[in-house]
Amino acid sequence: MFFIEKVAILGAGLLGGSLAKALKARGAAGKVAAWSRGESTRAKCAKLKGVFDEVFDCPRKAAENADVVVLCAPTAAIPKLARDIAPSLKPGAILTDVGSVKSAICAECGDAVKNTKAHFVGSHPMAGSEKIGVDFSTPDLFEGRPCFVVGSAPQADIIAKMWEAVGMKVYAVSAGEHDAIVARVSHLPHLLAGTLCLVSAAYKTDLRPYAGPGFRDTTRVASGSPEMWDSILADNRREIAAALREFAGSLDSLIGQVESGDAAALASRLRGAKDFRDGLI
Amino acid sequence: MFFIEKVAILGAGLLGGSLAKALKARGAAGKVAAWSRGESTRAKCAKLKGVFDEVFDCPRKAAENADVVVLCAPTAAIPKLARDIAPSLKPGAILTDVGSVKSAICAECGDAVKNTKAHFVGSHPMAGSEKIGVDFSTPDLFEGRPCFVVGSAPQADIIAKMWEAVGMKVYAVSAGEHDAIVARVSHLPHLLAGTLCLVSAAYKTDLRPYAGPGFRDTTRVASGSPEMWDSILADNRREIAAALREFAGSLDSLIGQVESGDAAALASRLRGAKDFRDGLI
Repeated sequence: MFFIEKVAILGAGLLGGSLAKALKARGAAGKVAAWSRGESTRAKCAKLKGVFDEVFDCPRKAAENADVVVLCAPTAAIPKLARDIAPSLKPGAILTDVGSVKSAICAECGDAVKNTKAHFVGSHPMAGSEKIGVDFSTPDLFEGRPCFVVGSAPQADIIAKMWEAVGMKVYAVSAGEHDAIVARVSHLPHLLAGTLCLVSAAYKTDLRPYAGPGFRDTTRVASGSPEMWDSILADNRREIAAALREFAGSLDSLIGQVESGDAAALASRLRGAKDFRDGLI
Repeated sequence: MFFIEKVAILGAGLLGGSLAKALKARGAAGKVAAWSRGESTRAKCAKLKGVFDEVFDCPRKAAENADVVVLCAPTAAIPKLARDIAPSLKPGAILTDVGSVKSAICAECGDAVKNTKAHFVGSHPMAGSEKIGVDFSTPDLFEGRPCFVVGSAPQADIIAKMWEAVGMKVYAVSAGEHDAIVARVSHLPHLLAGTLCLVSAAYKTDLRPYAGPGFRDTTRVASGSPEMWDSILADNRREIAAALREFAGSLDSLIGQVESGDAAALASRLRGAKDFRDGLI
């Protein structure tokens, strides 16, 4: 049975709070320490029963003596936080994160720990919601969801076991493979949903009264935190541009097929798309 | 209180079955007759308690003596069905439909009844699901959903009242306005979801294990019936092409902004999209 003596969670929001709850619920961690930038979040964390054993207003204090430190901060804030706490990590400690882009973070965080006896392993648990904050945290957030862990070092194996302990299906990838995959399954859908909203907003009449469940589902992700997406777009620019160009190419063929009334090509597209989508379930 | 003596529902699937259940549940119809092409569907309809008073294997028989006849057939089948039953309509009867494209249907069905004493009014109740068939029909399918009714004739007013009686919010539009609106709130999202599936299916590695709730929601509608969409794409070609071009134009700007790293433009897009999406709720 997997067990970590002390875990520190830096950034106690939806993901951090859910991880603490899940580790405790499964008996996979002894002590769980939390740090949050916000005073009201710290107060909420301290009030949760049996979740956080210690709550700190300083990330270095929270990380001291931890075997595993999980950076649950926004992507843009992760490297700075890693540099801040690196000197406080105990020898052999494993630092990981939950950022949704990996090439830049793995390079910067690897650099942050290079003069310490700690190790960095990039993680990306693909779980979440458009609801944010520790108030929405739940121990089953990770159940059955995929998680990427970068690399195959022994430390990566321990981090993989931690995510498996909270119910995730773990995939070992390189940082580059990760960024190419998430550009296509997450960043591209987000940008398409947003573009559909912008195009709809620009239409001459107000389309909102007519938006049904299909429109709502297709655009749901566009409600996500713009701050989070600012940094994703900056950090995964190359792969996102490639994914957008792949989509634009297919869209161009579609426009040609609609305009020329190519019923056979359109029929084949509809069926190919349905096959792929039905295969997800 | 709105009441129709006899309603005939031609095509007893998800929509037709739900309409029959909703009219009966609200006491808005005396007798409800059904026709279905399929023998097993007719058997199911006959077994439903208190929904269909009569079930016929001939659409003309079902339509006889009805005050309102609702064509709940696939879009492509509606004009032919209208021509078939037109001679059997009683004087003053109102024929309507549920087709998701209106210009072609209103022209052809108007033509079908022009030598009779019946009237045609186009309808498009925006309710449904990717589940099809009378087995999934439910009296609250229409509750709170928008419905388009074409024109402002006294007969259009009666049809509007029927949809209102089953809980819909009715919008009076011209056939052209309808087709432009649904191209943008329904047909465009469907084609984008399908294109996202096709682009994902063409990627060098299998992306399906990594598809999270965001990807699933963004692509959900691509699971819809390809047969239904074949005819929508054929019948609303001009407006769909226009909507696709609007989208492609916005996508081109987005690609430029991602490639040049125009953070200000991208930030403004993300926030504009979120504002529109949040305004739907």
